[in-house]
Parts: sequence; structure tokens; C-alpha cells
Amino acid sequence: MTKLSKSTIGVGVAGTGFIGPAHVEALRRNGITVLGLAENTREKAEQKAAEMGIPRIYGSLDEMLKDDDIQVVHLATPNYLHYPHAKAALLAGKHVVCEKPLAMNTRESAELVQLAKETGKVNVVNFNIRMYPLVQQARSMVQSGELGDLFILQGSYLQDWLLFPTDWNWRLEPELGGSLRAVGDIGSHWLDLITFITGLRVVEVFADFKTMHPVRKKPARPVETYTGKILQPEDYVDQPIFTEDYATVLLHFENDVRGVLTVGQVCSGRKNRLFFEINASKSSLAWDSERPNELWVGHRTQPNQIIMKDPALLSPEARAVTSYPGGHNEGFPDTFKQLYNKVYNYILAGDYNKPPDFPTFADGHYEMQLCEAIERSAKEKVWIKV
Amino acid sequence: MTKLSKSTIGVGVAGTGFIGPAHVEALRRNGITVLGLAENTREKAEQKAAEMGIPRIYGSLDEMLKDDDIQVVHLATPNYLHYPHAKAALLAGKHVVCEKPLAMNTRESAELVQLAKETGKVNVVNFNIRMYPLVQQARSMVQSGELGDLFILQGSYLQDWLLFPTDWNWRLEPELGGSLRAVGDIGSHWLDLITFITGLRVVEVFADFKTMHPVRKKPARPVETYTGKILQPEDYVDQPIFTEDYATVLLHFENDVRGVLTVGQVCSGRKNRLFFEINASKSSLAWDSERPNELWVGHRTQPNQIIMKDPALLSPEARAVTSYPGGHNEGFPDTFKQLYNKVYNYILAGDYNKPPDFPTFADGHYEMQLCEAIERSAKEKVWIKV
Amino acid sequence: MTKLSKSTIGVGVAGTGFIGPAHVEALRRNGITVLGLAENTREKAEQKAAEMGIPRIYGSLDEMLKDDDIQVVHLATPNYLHYPHAKAALLAGKHVVCEKPLAMNTRESAELVQLAKETGKVNVVNFNIRMYPLVQQARSMVQSGELGDLFILQGSYLQDWLLFPTDWNWRLEPELGGSLRAVGDIGSHWLDLITFITGLRVVEVFADFKTMHPVRKKPARPVETYTGKILQPEDYVDQPIFTEDYATVLLHFENDVRGVLTVGQVCSGRKNRLFFEINASKSSLAWDSERPNELWVGHRTQPNQIIMKDPALLSPEARAVTSYPGGHNEGFPDTFKQLYNKVYNYILAGDYNKPPDFPTFADGHYEMQLCEAIERSAKEKVWIKV
Amino acid sequence: MTKLSKSTIGVGVAGTGFIGPAHVEALRRNGITVLGLAENTREKAEQKAAEMGIPRIYGSLDEMLKDDDIQVVHLATPNYLHYPHAKAALLAGKHVVCEKPLAMNTRESAELVQLAKETGKVNVVNFNIRMYPLVQQARSMVQSGELGDLFILQGSYLQDWLLFPTDWNWRLEPELGGSLRAVGDIGSHWLDLITFITGLRVVEVFADFKTMHPVRKKPARPVETYTGKILQPEDYVDQPIFTEDYATVLLHFENDVRGVLTVGQVCSGRKNRLFFEINASKSSLAWDSERPNELWVGHRTQPNQIIMKDPALLSPEARAVTSYPGGHNEGFPDTFKQLYNKVYNYILAGDYNKPPDFPTFADGHYEMQLCEAIERSAKEKVWIKV
Repeated sequence: MTKLSKSTIGVGVAGTGFIGPAHVEALRRNGITVLGLAENTREKAEQKAAEMGIPRIYGSLDEMLKDDDIQVVHLATPNYLHYPHAKAALLAGKHVVCEKPLAMNTRESAELVQLAKETGKVNVVNFNIRMYPLVQQARSMVQSGELGDLFILQGSYLQDWLLFPTDWNWRLEPELGGSLRAVGDIGSHWLDLITFITGLRVVEVFADFKTMHPVRKKPARPVETYTGKILQPEDYVDQPIFTEDYATVLLHFENDVRGVLTVGQVCSGRKNRLFFEINASKSSLAWDSERPNELWVGHRTQPNQIIMKDPALLSPEARAVTSYPGGHNEGFPDTFKQLYNKVYNYILAGDYNKPPDFPTFADGHYEMQLCEAIERSAKEKVWIKV
Repeated sequence: MTKLSKSTIGVGVAGTGFIGPAHVEALRRNGITVLGLAENTREKAEQKAAEMGIPRIYGSLDEMLKDDDIQVVHLATPNYLHYPHAKAALLAGKHVVCEKPLAMNTRESAELVQLAKETGKVNVVNFNIRMYPLVQQARSMVQSGELGDLFILQGSYLQDWLLFPTDWNWRLEPELGGSLRAVGDIGSHWLDLITFITGLRVVEVFADFKTMHPVRKKPARPVETYTGKILQPEDYVDQPIFTEDYATVLLHFENDVRGVLTVGQVCSGRKNRLFFEINASKSSLAWDSERPNELWVGHRTQPNQIIMKDPALLSPEARAVTSYPGGHNEGFPDTFKQLYNKVYNYILAGDYNKPPDFPTFADGHYEMQLCEAIERSAKEKVWIKV
Repeated sequence: MTKLSKSTIGVGVAGTGFIGPAHVEALRRNGITVLGLAENTREKAEQKAAEMGIPRIYGSLDEMLKDDDIQVVHLATPNYLHYPHAKAALLAGKHVVCEKPLAMNTRESAELVQLAKETGKVNVVNFNIRMYPLVQQARSMVQSGELGDLFILQGSYLQDWLLFPTDWNWRLEPELGGSLRAVGDIGSHWLDLITFITGLRVVEVFADFKTMHPVRKKPARPVETYTGKILQPEDYVDQPIFTEDYATVLLHFENDVRGVLTVGQVCSGRKNRLFFEINASKSSLAWDSERPNELWVGHRTQPNQIIMKDPALLSPEARAVTSYPGGHNEGFPDTFKQLYNKVYNYILAGDYNKPPDFPTFADGHYEMQLCEAIERSAKEKVWIKV
Repeated sequence: MTKLSKSTIGVGVAGTGFIGPAHVEALRRNGITVLGLAENTREKAEQKAAEMGIPRIYGSLDEMLKDDDIQVVHLATPNYLHYPHAKAALLAGKHVVCEKPLAMNTRESAELVQLAKETGKVNVVNFNIRMYPLVQQARSMVQSGELGDLFILQGSYLQDWLLFPTDWNWRLEPELGGSLRAVGDIGSHWLDLITFITGLRVVEVFADFKTMHPVRKKPARPVETYTGKILQPEDYVDQPIFTEDYATVLLHFENDVRGVLTVGQVCSGRKNRLFFEINASKSSLAWDSERPNELWVGHRTQPNQIIMKDPALLSPEARAVTSYPGGHNEGFPDTFKQLYNKVYNYILAGDYNKPPDFPTFADGHYEMQLCEAIERSAKEKVWIKV
């Protein structure tokens, strides 16, 4: 068999909502050809493939899995499909890049971790936010001990796209999105990020939830994520909502490090703002995903600093995910590019015993464990061990 | 008796630490003469009075209270003295402006509220932060319904002056500062502010505390607040610390409004940063005390806004505490000036049945109740009703 | 004669517009009693003195100058009166604190410098902006060589209070405000600041002017500075405008350092924003008067910094004009307080051969020289030597 | 002939410095295959093509032009090659996307404009900054009259990568980079942007130049753009520098609109900061390329606004260059993607009489005219008509 390269490896993408095209363009930036596109009908696949210039189409995931030219599958489908699709893909002998959350519960995610191990396939959960250069920089600074002992890990992830009771999306339906929403959809990104940066596991959690809109207006016809903002309040039906619009989670990490996370999807003016602040015995860090090219470093005995995304100022790990010089902003799409660069280098190198430098199914499973503990705490109103 | 005016009313100040001089200059800006200064010795009083140009001195509060020319007493003494001093002052027939916290516990604070009522004297707790123009603006916007229904009241109050185990201050000693520290000293400001802005009372609280430095180095000789930063690590003694360096408090307000407050005094780079964000059904507000002349307004269907402290853009209530035109920053000292302007107008007007437009002992007592509930929750690890 | 102190020195203030009360409260914060107030009628003086609690009143400057208890005179009158008033005050043997600009032209300002020298009286021009702690910090950093060799001195001073053709103020009338407006009124502050920080004199200038509103609507009755924003467009008369709404000035400093200043009073959203950026061979500085508690330091080989107004982080010179701890904002009114603290310490110390640590008539005269060169360049469209 | 599509059109890229790879990945994001890569040797082409996964290589531009499968040529070569390369490409019947500046002087650029017209080929100058969503938004707001009459167009473009005398790059050599440097390299972007946003042409200019480092250390061996930051000061030779490190240009636009631009490449801390502020009779705009997802709108009678890059808040023109939802940052690489999306849609549509919605050789020629006037003004120290 010829040695595969980025140009020749066979990649298929399933799903063409908000995030599928992000996968496609990020793959292409890495010189990787997207060979095929799967949608739930051949018609939809055909239309989208034409738009995006993808040569092969499939009317289902199964069809794609049967294509022997496909070696890697990207799953950009709704949450409830991640588990069956990832399972099928692994069983079909494909490497899998799966959107988060990895599954609907820990039973499923544990099974996927096990299956990935058994099949020996490369498995990735798309926690792309890790790949912001200044997130990598934060990690380098924490891991090197430059900040000192960790004290407080605080922050939030706030959005406003579900502010109005007329806002609708499949994520609002537990059977499609899961029994957690704000925590599962965006809180999981924050939790993964903090784990990635600090290397600390959560020991126990205490959560407070609220659903600000216990009833929402569901439109008769389907609408796409994030674009519902211009819909008219007509032809809606009342739909009771059981998932949280808001949550705050108190966190006890290893080494008795303390944390707190607030998530909300009804926070007007916050479009998609992940914020963290890390307070440690020497210095602090703060980062805001809406200004991702700046990392604030807080000091007591010297002036505070703003580290810009400038390769000349970054750690080797951060520089490795930086493509452009200082002052040339890199943003959300670039995190996908950097992630797949790492993933495909790893896939093509072929040594799958090497520790991966990207988030795997094990990370996805850990997030599911955290989420279940958080959900239980919110219900039982007590601290829950993870 | 001649009608009193700002120039002729007799005002005495007790205490000359960090905050006493702030009272003095704010009084003078209002055209109010500071007649006398009390310290715990005549020598100290004499020295400080000479520095500040205050004509009369007293070697104790009692001495000041015996001066019939004194009609108003400002208490800028350590926390544990607030209760006995305020009580003595009221009993001596003086109006009282007391630094926060009003007392060491609710028994004391309740007694002071009762005594103030009985004596009919004007009573003030120095929650000066209410007097920032943009805090008043926030209140106007919430109260007018411009933001819609309140959803989330979140924020923090972070400082770094107790970051190192060698940092020392009387606030660290429970018998001088109280059994709460970060929550009592700065959290109380945040809680008062949110109550002031929203008009909502807290129904129940859940708290998580941590003392990052369970042992600190106490210097042999006394040091002044905020200036210990340049001390050398010698001649210290080990002192166990029982009060919290960090706390997060989950808050359930009336109308099932949710809230969360994080306080920390070990957060390097945050010098004195009170931050709040209010998310409501129409718009959000955010304010940062380190940039007090800007109020962020977050919107979903129109661009976000920054309201500057410009009288032309403010509500009547906010304009009433604004002295300078737009772009001319007003800061921390100005809040004292605006507060005492209100207080002395009220005192001089003479109608003490009129609802005061400044924080009173009742507000100070409410904070004590909140703090006790928070402390209990942190100990018992359950939600505590206020 | 008894030795004077801050409490006993006799201070008179002339003028009660926007800036007179700023003088009064700043004096009082320093423990200085304001003894008398002069206005152009006794009625106006009486009313304003009652509002501000000032004991003595005068119906004219001359009347105030005849009061032997007055040792220092503050001139907060319209520009065209500065020269005759300062001259009369010096001749009457008073120390003089004069608002800027010092005079209407260099002939007048030169005469005042000479007269001040002859009378030996303390003479001050109210360039208050020098007294922001972080401006002093900038000066310390430049003077110590920390920034390296100076390259570029760039910036702007922008306001919006004259945006609309219906905005009116006495400063628009050359015979009251002078033949320069934006340059004289606000540009002079910027030029003084840069001279103060760098110690460099301007060698030559090139200017470009524009009057965006060559005709404005002048109200029939007088309006107060900065408050005209709420007037209705009625009872106005058309008034041709000859002074500049906008100017950019190219600057050649000593040592061939380059500079550029843009001023505008028709820049909506900029309430009162003085900005400077200093680029030098090692580092850069930037400061924005609308966020005066932060100084940006730009680096090439290390992260940029934000120096906050925290005494623990400041140079001795900056700390000397700082009254409050880090994170406690000080603003515009505080610059007056710090300036008069220096001025009255100097007056009371009594050694007038000592170099003053505040701006004097000589600085005021230098600004007039600069302004005249700028005005000439704008007219002649050539570089003009200063 | 088969109708071309994004997948089948033949695209060749010349040059693999800093900017060539930016072209490549932006093309691929649009589903466009990069067919060939030209370098000045086959060895270099081979190595870079392998890195980037490009199938065909050429040892010279001429070789690439002879490949009939190439229909579009991207020129990412040093400045002095733009003219001969663009000319050759047009003569070979290729569409041309050329990096700026288009040529070394107006004689060359005029010839290219003429040649493009004669050949009927699509011609593009890579003024990518136009494609930031909020730049398009600024343009929409100006063009719709929302801001009112334009008053002042001010701003700067500052960098620090040439701060030290040891910094070196081919742009420093006039015969490679041109006789202008800061103005030609980055000032031209600012000038193009302001023209694009306002539609106004410059009538006359007045410029002030300075070369802070009249002698620089040139390394013996070649270094790549922006990466020289880590070189050691050894093996350098002294090289006199004739191009400007700094310039300020006064601008008189049509309709007597005033402007001023400052450029500098020795401004430490400013990595790559293009800033503009537009002041008009109703409102102002300000934008900073280091925070490209935010557009400041300044108002007089209402709060200032921050428009985020949120499709729901943008004009149709701005939305058309936006790929991701609000809060998902798009940055520098995305401007290339959006530009080529427009360019290839135009190329593939085939109607070259339609006014292009991207910058063309005519725009590149206009910039050359401006630059020549600026250079002449700096030399002659007088206003120069464009």
C-alpha cells in the first residue's frame, strides 16, 4: 500500500449544519482533500457537496462507512447521533473525529472509549478551543510553574442566541441535544479547557440551574442554528423546556484548588464569550474568547501584562499552533485548522501508541462524567463526587 | 438656636487609617468644616490633626462625644469598634456615619437599628460605591424596566493585597475584623450594590470558602492597610488564619432571580475590582469599578453600548451624583463626596421621616444578616435561608 | 507676622463657571479655606458664595485685590480676562494661579512672565493634566531613560461638545476666547503635557486647520459651558465662526524627534479624550485621559504592560500625586487637588528661588509661543520655526 | 470546453514567503485547488510544494505561465517583481491576483492598468483588509449617510518589527521594495481602506518623513519576513537606509474633507495595528485591526456603541463576507478567503464588464499615484496635488 499523505488520505464528513463546513475548510487549509460528504438524504448531500465542491456524496453515514477509500470520518451531526455514528465508524475501521459532546451519557461514552482502544483507531473529540495560541500559552505558563500554585479557576461561558422565548434550536430538545444544554453545549468546552490548561481533575461539584424560559415557541418548520434571529413570531407552537438556560457550578479540583463556572445562553450582548481567570500564588491569567489574541497576566509586584498572539512572545507549544505573525489576528476557524493539523500529522505518522497532542474520546468521556455529576448535584442540591 | 449650615454644623471624625482621610476630604469638598478628630491617644490625634488641619482633637471617642459642638460623628475605626462607638454616639445624641460592616454580628447590628430609631438620629452606613454615577444609572435602568425581567446577577470583587503569606492587616484577625473577611470586607459592598440596583432581597445562599494561606506571617510592629507591600520577610511570627481568602456564593433572590458572587483577596493583578453583570430579558449591564466611568449595555438585536459618565446621557438620579462633564473622570474619592452631599442635605433639611436617599443602619443590618447566612452555609454545606 | 498655614492663608477665587468650583473643592481637599469669591456683580458673587459656603464676596476682581487678607488669587475667568487680571493681581502683591491660556498673545504672556519675575510672586498656570499619577509615571520613565531614545510623539485631543452648529460657548468668540480655539483650548494641554513628559522643546511646526461649521447658531441668552446640549434650536442668530474646529499639527522637536497632534471639537463620542503615544528606541507608552488610571507600555521582545495607578508600582514622582491605593480610581478633580497641594506647599515654604514643581507663567508663555507659530503655519502653509 | 468550477479552475501561486501560503490556504478554503507553485528555483519550489501539498512545480514564473492548465496566477513575490510578473501573466492570457504594491512607480502601474484593459483579464490587487466584515460595515454606514457629512478621516498603521537597527528585510532595500517603505508597505493599505470606505479621492497631500535608523545591520545570509526577531547581532554589515521608518501625511480629500495618517515601523508594542477613526456630522466610527471583530460607533446624544461581528447586526455587504456567527472571531486569514471568494465568483461568472466587487489594478495604480505625491511632498516640503 502506498504511504498516505495529506493529499491522498480519504476523508469523509457527516453533517452540514453550522459546524460541518468549519471542518471542511479547516481540512482543506491543511492540504487535506475532503473526499465525501454524508447527509441524511442523498438530495441534501448532493446540494451541499455541490456548494462546497466535494466529489462524493452519501445518503447516510452507513453508506459513507462502506466506502473503502474513506479512512477518517468527521462527525458534525446532532448530539444524539454521535454515539451510534462513532461506534459504527470505529467498527467499520475508520479513524473518528467527533463533535462534542461525545455521547448522550457516560454509558455510551465509556463504550466508545473502550471500542476505540480495541480497534486501535485514532479518536478525537473536537474541543477546538484548546488550539487557540493563547490557550496553549496559558497551559505552558501553568505547567511550567510560572504562575505558582493554583488558587482559583473561575470563569463563564455566556451567549445570547437563546435569549428570547421565540429562539429555537434542536439543542433545546433533550432527545436530540441531551438532558443538559448550557452545561453540555458550552460549559463542557470551559471544563475541558481548564482541565487541559491546569491538568487538574474535578473532585466534586455543586450546581445551581435555572430555566428562564420554561416554555418556548417552537417553529413549525426547521431553522438553522444561530440564524433564527430573524424569524417572525408566527406559526410557533408552545413547547415546554426541561434543560437549563443558566447554571453556576462550584468546583473542587484536586489539590483542593477551587473553581466556579457560570454558563448562560440568555445573556444579551454576549455573543459567544468564554472567559476564564486563573489566580495562582505568583500571578493570574485571564482570557476572553471574544478577544482571543490577547492574554492578560495579572501581577502583584509588577505591572500587569497583555501577551499578544505574537510568535516571538509565545511558548514553543503556543507557537506551534500559530500560523501568522504578531498583530495578524487568528480566530475561531483557525482553531479547527490547528487541531486537524495535529490530528492528521498523528494519523499519518502511524504510531498510535504515542500520546496524542489533541483531545480524545477519553477526554470526551471525562466531560460526560463531569456533566452527569453536575446534573445530579443540580437535582439533589448537594455536593456530588465525580 | 441658629439654623445650621454646611459651614457651621459640627462634624467629628474618629479614625485616621486608610479611610478616615477620605471622609475628611469628601466633607470639605461639600463645604463642610471638620471640627474635630478622635484617635486612641491624644498624641496620635494631635499629629494627624496637624497634618490635616483639623482644629480640635480628642484622645478617645468618648471625649469627642462629650463635645457639645459636635453634631455628627464619622466612625472610620476598625470593624470591632463600630458597634460600641455607634451605640455610644447615638446615645450621646449624635448623628452617625459608620464605616461598614456596621457591627460584628446581627445581634449588635439589630440593636443599632433599634437604637437609631429610638433616638431619631440620622444613621448612615458608608456604602459609598452606590454613589458612582454609573451605578446610579444602572439602578435607574433596572428600576424603569428598561432591561426587562431580571435573569442573572453575577459578578465578583477581587483584590490582590493579601496575595502573599507575608501580607498582614488587622482585618485578618477575627476579633478585630470579624469572623468573615473577604465576604465581609468586600463581598458586602457587592451585595449591597446589587440590592441597591435591583431592589431584590436574597432568599437563600450557598457558599464555598477557602483560606489559601492557613498560616500567615504577622509582623511584630503594626503596618497600615494596603502599604504592607514593601515590607521585608523578617521579624514575622506565624499566625493561623481562620477567615476566608476566597468565597463563591450562590444566591437565590426574590422572584427566583439567580445570582453568583466570587470574592478573593489573593487575585494578583486585580487591585480592587468590583465587577457585576446583570442579565435580563431585554438587555444586560456590566460595570467594572476599575473603569468606573463606563457602563456596558449588552443587546441581542442592536449593537452593544458603552454609556460614559456624561451628564447629557444619564438618568436624573445618575446626573445628581455627577459633578463634572463627560470625559472628565470621577473616581473613588468622588463617591464619598456625593454620599455626604446627600447625607448632609438630609441632616440639614431636618425632616427625618423622609425616606433617606443613602444607605442606613437598616442596610448595614441586612448585610450582616446576609453575611451570617453565608458563613453558616459555608460551614454546613447546605442552602441557608436568609 | 504669624507663619501662614493651609488653614490660615487667604485665598480668593475669581470666576464660577465650569472650572471655578473645581478650584474651590480642590483647595478645600487640601485643608485650604477659600476666603473670598469674586464675580462680575456682587449679586452673582453672593448667590454663588452662598451655594459654595464661601464667607466673603466681591463684585469685581479689583475689590478682591484690595482685600489685604487675600494672599493668593485663582483666576477662573474667561480667557480674555486672564492677562489684565493676572497683571492686576501681581501688581497688588498676590500670588496667582491662572487658568490656561495665560493670555491672548505672546506680548501679553511675555509681560506677565516678566512681571511675575519682578514681583517675586508665585505664579501658576493651571495645566492640571500633568498631575495625573500616570502622566507623572510616563515622565519618570522617559526621564530615566527606560524608554530609550525618543522617536515619535503622537496623539490627539478630541471632544464632541461643539459637534452641532447649534452648540455655542464664549470660546467660539475670538475676542473672548482668542484667535485659536481647538488648538488653544485643548491642544495647549496636549503640548504642555508632552513638553512636561519629554522635556523637549518644539523647533518648528506645520499646521492644517478646518472650521467645519463656518456659521453657528448663537443663542440670544447666555449658556453655560458643556450644558448647552439640551437647548432647543430657537432664538438663535447666525454667527460666522473664524476659529478652528479641527487641526493637525506636525511637530519637529529638539534632537529631530518627530511629533503629530490632532485636535477636534466635533468628534462625536469622544467626550474629552486626550491621547498620547510615545514611541522610543526601547519601548512605547500610551495614555488615554478617559481611562486615566492605566498606562500602556508597548514592548517588542516582551509582553506589553498595563501599569495601573497603584502606588506600589509607581515611581516616587507618580506616587507623590497619588492619594489612594491601587484599584481606587482617581480622576479629573484629583489633578486639581494634587496641583494645589504642590503649589501651596511651595507658597508656604517661602523659598521662591527653588525651582517650582508645577507649571508656571513661563510654561504658559511657551504655550502661547507655540500657538502663535501654529496659527501662522496654518495661514501661510509652511513650516514655522518656534 | 467544459464550464470551469472552483474545483477545476487552474490556479498557480508564485512566491512562498510570508504571504504566499496565506493565498494558498485561502484558495483551498473556497474549494479551489492550487495546481502549481512557482519559485525562483525548482528545488525551492519542490520543497515548498511538498510541504504544502501542491501537485505541480515551476522553477520560474515563465515556466508557470507556459502551463496551459493555469488560468489564474497569484503573485506573492517581492515588490520589484510585481510589474514584470503581472505584465507577463497578462500577456500570457492569465487572470492575475497581485500583492500590493502593484508596481514600483506609476509608469509601471499605469501600463498594467492599460494592459489589463486590453487583455480583458480579471485583475486584482490584494488589498485584503477591505474584506474584514466590520470594514465592510463601516463602508455601508458611511455610504448610506448614517454618519452624516464626513469631517475628519484620521488614523495610523503602526508596527514594531523594524524597531531595532538589527532588524532586516528585503523591504529595506529600495531596489527590491521601492523608494517608499512604511508608506508603501502599510500606509497604502490604510489609504486604500479609507478610499474604499468613504469613496473619496485625495486632492492633495503634505508629508513629513523620518528614518530613525539611517544605518541598519544587514545580515550576511537571507532572513524571512517577521522572523528576524530572534537573530543574533553578528555577521551583519552596515547598510545605509534611505526609506522612511516613520511618516505622517496630511490629507485633503474631495469635498474639503480633512485627513491625517501616521505610519511607523518602529513602534514597539504595536505588532500590526491599522487604526482609523472617521468623524462625521452625526456619528463617528473607529476600528483597530488588532481587535478586528469590534467597530466603535461614537455618538453625541446617545451612548457609544460597539458593533460586534455578528451577522444579525451587520449590513448585507458586511454579512456577505462573514462566515461564522457572532462571537466566533474571524481574523486576518479570513480576509483572504473572503476576497478570493468574490474574485473567483467573478472569474467563474465570466461577465467581465460587470463592476468588480474587489480591488483591481486601477486601485493599485491609484495607490501608486498617492504614494508618489506623498514622496514628493516629503522631499519638497509643500502640499502636492494628486
